[in-house]
Amino acid sequence: MSIALIIPDRDLTDLQQRLQQALPQTKVEIWPNVTEVEQVSFALVWKPPVGSLSSLPNLNAIQCFGAGVDAIFLDKAVPSVPIARIIDDRLNQTMVNYLDAIVSHYRLRFDRFSQQQQQQVWKPKSPRKLANICILGLGELGTAAAKHFVSLGYKVSGWSRRAKNLSQISCYHGDAELAMAVAEADVVICLLPLTAQTENLLDAQAFAKFKNDSIFINVARGAIVDDQALIAALNSGKLQAACLDVFRQEPLPTDHPFWQHPAIFITPHISAVTNIESAIEQTVINYQRQQQGLAMLNLIDRTQGY
Amino acid sequence: MSIALIIPDRDLTDLQQRLQQALPQTKVEIWPNVTEVEQVSFALVWKPPVGSLSSLPNLNAIQCFGAGVDAIFLDKAVPSVPIARIIDDRLNQTMVNYLDAIVSHYRLRFDRFSQQQQQQVWKPKSPRKLANICILGLGELGTAAAKHFVSLGYKVSGWSRRAKNLSQISCYHGDAELAMAVAEADVVICLLPLTAQTENLLDAQAFAKFKNDSIFINVARGAIVDDQALIAALNSGKLQAACLDVFRQEPLPTDHPFWQHPAIFITPHISAVTNIESAIEQTVINYQRQQQGLAMLNLIDRTQGY
Repeated sequence: MSIALIIPDRDLTDLQQRLQQALPQTKVEIWPNVTEVEQVSFALVWKPPVGSLSSLPNLNAIQCFGAGVDAIFLDKAVPSVPIARIIDDRLNQTMVNYLDAIVSHYRLRFDRFSQQQQQQVWKPKSPRKLANICILGLGELGTAAAKHFVSLGYKVSGWSRRAKNLSQISCYHGDAELAMAVAEADVVICLLPLTAQTENLLDAQAFAKFKNDSIFINVARGAIVDDQALIAALNSGKLQAACLDVFRQEPLPTDHPFWQHPAIFITPHISAVTNIESAIEQTVINYQRQQQGLAMLNLIDRTQGY
Repeated sequence: MSIALIIPDRDLTDLQQRLQQALPQTKVEIWPNVTEVEQVSFALVWKPPVGSLSSLPNLNAIQCFGAGVDAIFLDKAVPSVPIARIIDDRLNQTMVNYLDAIVSHYRLRFDRFSQQQQQQVWKPKSPRKLANICILGLGELGTAAAKHFVSLGYKVSGWSRRAKNLSQISCYHGDAELAMAVAEADVVICLLPLTAQTENLLDAQAFAKFKNDSIFINVARGAIVDDQALIAALNSGKLQAACLDVFRQEPLPTDHPFWQHPAIFITPHISAVTNIESAIEQTVINYQRQQQGLAMLNLIDRTQGY
């Protein structure tokens, strides 16, 4: 039995050593340098290349090295084995810290003052009145974010695929209720999983339902947003600003119009980074459970894609 | 008896009406349009022009329309009457919110990502490790800020003129201990009053005592900082960034080198704006106390200048 790490474009020396140390009886190898593919029963993956998972004939389990599993399903031939993901309070906290900072950034008009500085313009202005926040996606991260903003005194609405019931949060669900969820929101934060249902969900029609002058923040996946529709919504003044941490293609191509748009603030996918300690811990537990014939923790539902 | 509002360059119609409503028996006038200067016993002031206060022969009390009284003493002939200032929990909270937002801004490297966006550069980087914060000035605002950062888990040091003893804050005082207060600080926040003792306090010698690569935030008064010394400390790499909300001259002159410095973030004196409701409330109370022969609340010590 061995474990394969399928995490391209990353130095995995440290991760491999630490997993090997935690599981001394098991060979931990870095794909594609796997000595015997027949031996691999467990794969730890992040954006696995198409074909990599199906090249392992005796694979029993896939552990995703983060919270979002969408990149695994880019490969239509992913073996039919259980898939688990990382669920981590520290990841939630990192995301909440980012969202807290970016909402303060807009509330205090740091975006405007930064532009004014470039033009040597001195124009004091009181904070933006941001009272209502809508969270799209009420999974682990979305719920943590919604609760945080409730605790700060914001009026919070949330939207999810399935009906949810969360204290002090106005919960909406399903396509028909998206308009109600965003109608009053000064800030809309996207924390949806990327699935066949959410791909391009935020298109021209969706942005038309947003409150005028609202601010949009995407910390989920770039492909949930129709890039051209977002630019159009900013240019028409429907949205007054957008903060984007995730993109359809990452790194964001140099010639993409997002880079130079004056109403867009770009951060390079840093809003929530997997904590390596948590990831190793959960990987070890899930490997051992799988060895013992137990179900892994934090399994995803393949039919839903998350 | 009448009240004079001496607050230049500002539309005072609303303030006048509200004070007049609260004190129907007293004439509330806007300086210099005062019908009988002999009648003025009480002045509500913000940056009063030199000579304005000494032109009121029967003045008994001065109420400053904010927390910082330094601008009053630019006039060497300020009458020897009691001076009160505004102390307001809401003002404290506004300042704490600003400082919280700007520390998060630097922690999450929004400054760098913003510059990278201008150059279409994608370079993810984990947050800055900001563990120690030093607050210069442990008055109302400084103490509120220090307590806030303690509550977030930061190690906080503070420095003041007189010895202080605050729970969970390493308190230093006097010129000799400034070096100790700033030695370990990743972020130094200036919340000192502007007095003869603090003018140009932060000069080349003072910045030399800062931790290498530290971040400086000035939300107090511009004249506490030697502008050229700050620029030199940034250019030498001693400081990695500065956020300035206050300036020696405001509005900051268009040709001032701060505007274009890549390591400086400028906000136009918005970190803490006097709350008009609190200011009216405290002015009315102090006017009534002064009429009744009682000492005003929140008096300043003229010999200390704050």
